[in-house]
Amino acid sequence: MQRRDQTKDEDFKKMNPLASLIDAFRGLPGIGPKSAQRIALHLLQYRREHGMHLACCLENAMQTIKYCDQCNNHTTESLCDFCSNLKRDAHTLCIVESTMDLAAIEQTQIFNGRYFVLLGKISPLNGITAEDIGLDKLITVLEQGTIKEVIFALSPSIEGQTTAFYIQEMIKPYAIKITQLAHGIPSNADLEFLDAHTIRLALSQRATLS
Amino acid sequence: MQRRDQTKDEDFKKMNPLASLIDAFRGLPGIGPKSAQRIALHLLQYRREHGMHLACCLENAMQTIKYCDQCNNHTTESLCDFCSNLKRDAHTLCIVESTMDLAAIEQTQIFNGRYFVLLGKISPLNGITAEDIGLDKLITVLEQGTIKEVIFALSPSIEGQTTAFYIQEMIKPYAIKITQLAHGIPSNADLEFLDAHTIRLALSQRATLS
Repeated sequence: MQRRDQTKDEDFKKMNPLASLIDAFRGLPGIGPKSAQRIALHLLQYRREHGMHLACCLENAMQTIKYCDQCNNHTTESLCDFCSNLKRDAHTLCIVESTMDLAAIEQTQIFNGRYFVLLGKISPLNGITAEDIGLDKLITVLEQGTIKEVIFALSPSIEGQTTAFYIQEMIKPYAIKITQLAHGIPSNADLEFLDAHTIRLALSQRATLS
Repeated sequence: MQRRDQTKDEDFKKMNPLASLIDAFRGLPGIGPKSAQRIALHLLQYRREHGMHLACCLENAMQTIKYCDQCNNHTTESLCDFCSNLKRDAHTLCIVESTMDLAAIEQTQIFNGRYFVLLGKISPLNGITAEDIGLDKLITVLEQGTIKEVIFALSPSIEGQTTAFYIQEMIKPYAIKITQLAHGIPSNADLEFLDAHTIRLALSQRATLS
């Protein structure tokens, strides 16, 4: 088995197994030192079988899940569920920064097109160039000629906008319609707690009602 | 390997590995469906090696950590770090409901005695009797004759208090001093947000200042 060969994992076995487990949980999204301890002790005291099951799920997922050949989404096949689903609209392509963002859009149940997942954002300061984020795959998709609209669902950060701008320039030769998610006031938000930039955008892009 | 033999784990492999992983994270303390998805996708996209490391830590901890022969705390040896530490005061024994509670007391760095971890609480409604929560081990400890004070750190729930009462009766023949953690207003609490029972206790057990 792959992980048996790793010296790192042999080393940690000499350490306290409970401390190692707490340490491994700590730092996962939303899990601080206290939660990590709570989860580890909970599994040990009440749910050891589930702990073994989680270990098995983790190993299986990390080893079998790879990137879709077409869109970089997670999949165990060569094409992901979206790219291989003929019922999805192949003319609309939504570009997202991560599979987490893909899942967030998918749960709205309003988008029926396809996705393209970037493997990061262009960031010259961190040495991440256009080549590193898998844009060659995007060109392959565009070359197929079926895409009629590209929707940008990238974050409003500098890196997100740099990446969007770069892709926009890249797409130009293909004469494809380019759109981006609307910016404005989120539902159920209190104006007083929103940042000035969001309110500025919402004002300048205000909708005409009548 | 033990878990390879489990049919349950063979079955789930036929399922979508990502869905299985999210499902296995969901329901751990503090992890809801959204957090479970976020953790699974985060590991897959950015930290696959750490995912394998976590799997290894889990398997190792679930298989090697057992209960201390003397106090039921988690340990890989026959005696836990507290029971085998000669610098800890062997005359004072703090009875807790779980290793999570033990960890909470230990982090105050004010208690230097030993612990006894119950394997649950007496709950006639759920069919949990005194035998099920490991009180035979407690009697063995008491029989050694070194304990001079037993501190109850059990929850104020009905089960917690039933258990405390049962143990109190059990300890009587040994002529040991019995105390319990003080009840009252927690530090930094706003009176207006506290429940009536806590305030009632704090009033009736008020401290004389001068």
